[in-house]
Amino acid sequence: MTTTFYAPPSSIRGARVVLPEAEARHAAASLRKTAGDKIVVVDGEGGWHRVRLNHVSREQVVGNIVETKREVGEPEREVTVGMALLKKRSRFETFVEKAVELGVARLVPLRTERTETTSFRPERVRNLMIAAMKQCGRSRLPALASPQPLTDVWETPRSWLICHEQADPERTVMKALRELPGDEPIGLLVGPEGGFTEQEVRAGREAGGRAVALGPRRLRAETAGIVAASAALLAPDPGAVAS
Amino acid sequence: MTTTFYAPPSSIRGARVVLPEAEARHAAASLRKTAGDKIVVVDGEGGWHRVRLNHVSREQVVGNIVETKREVGEPEREVTVGMALLKKRSRFETFVEKAVELGVARLVPLRTERTETTSFRPERVRNLMIAAMKQCGRSRLPALASPQPLTDVWETPRSWLICHEQADPERTVMKALRELPGDEPIGLLVGPEGGFTEQEVRAGREAGGRAVALGPRRLRAETAGIVAASAALLAPDPGAVAS
Repeated sequence: MTTTFYAPPSSIRGARVVLPEAEARHAAASLRKTAGDKIVVVDGEGGWHRVRLNHVSREQVVGNIVETKREVGEPEREVTVGMALLKKRSRFETFVEKAVELGVARLVPLRTERTETTSFRPERVRNLMIAAMKQCGRSRLPALASPQPLTDVWETPRSWLICHEQADPERTVMKALRELPGDEPIGLLVGPEGGFTEQEVRAGREAGGRAVALGPRRLRAETAGIVAASAALLAPDPGAVAS
Repeated sequence: MTTTFYAPPSSIRGARVVLPEAEARHAAASLRKTAGDKIVVVDGEGGWHRVRLNHVSREQVVGNIVETKREVGEPEREVTVGMALLKKRSRFETFVEKAVELGVARLVPLRTERTETTSFRPERVRNLMIAAMKQCGRSRLPALASPQPLTDVWETPRSWLICHEQADPERTVMKALRELPGDEPIGLLVGPEGGFTEQEVRAGREAGGRAVALGPRRLRAETAGIVAASAALLAPDPGAVAS
């Protein structure tokens, strides 16, 4: 399996790529790359490059782009997930890693009425996301919003699907997704341990969202997020059944 | 949200329930239950009981069953997941927790050609499973097999779906599931970090299994397991599309 490296657009000038420090160390010290080797570099903004290395030291790894593709590993459907911050930070982070692997475009950490924590480490989460992007073969790093109140979400018009334990059990997120065109941007919202309040769901409905269920068992918040993202991004022929 | 307690059938004689030690302590000390309170007890074998407590101390909590239901929270489809042991035990355990929440009936830890670890703590995993069963509202504790070689799996005739990165990308697990009757027991197989070998997949095919893909991105092993289990247990109208 080829190891993919990450270099943001600021590290790329024309055909010349200078790997960021941590990536350079990894290439030189752990993977023992040498001048002449070819590596794959993604820029986190949809750029995928095959690069021939022409200088390798532990301090600096420099190469030239020999091939470029766009949007490698990126899904057609643009999916945003608004996920409430969780009491156990590790659970929120498990969700983040899986969301990147599944192809989510944008992550919005939410503060909701039942949110009990505001613990959030953006640098740590960003590093997790970079690792997941490289691991799963994507070329885009999903956008990571700052934690925001749920009420801010409604300002972005979107097909919001609000995962809610008290939703009609027949109205699953899978069914709702099949009724939406496959190319329409989707927003999925997942509450904290105690779920969204009735009031929050009502406000979401008034903003054009729909409450959806995730099956007959009570899923943990991060499981709900993974399952909903998976349904939105890996369902067969999304939208096809409704036609 | 009601807290559910676990008492195996050996703790239940007729209508009398004696909570196991840890559950008794939790009920008495943390949740401050007292005689006269009603609690929900599941036996891990499909029994769901409403119980009125008649004796509560930190050492012993005893009650009488006032209502019994069967198979509460259990899915129609019987899903087995064979999941390779992973280098990071926490990733395997994340998978186990989610598999229980999603409704998997049987978990089989696998040793495969590319498995690099045999680290497995059955007691710890069982406790995780009990916690997940109570949390998600199931009444059955999934069966947990001892770690076994992949080759043993083929001895059980079943619709094995072998998650494989090199499978035809069009042959997704979601499509394969839609072609199987909703009431047919399903077996899902997920390899370790490096995946199954071509040889393992060939042997699986010869035993009647099919190789399936999990979409265009390279999912981590535990993500693959969660996504496949979710597709098998939460898909809308499984089997309906094929008819």
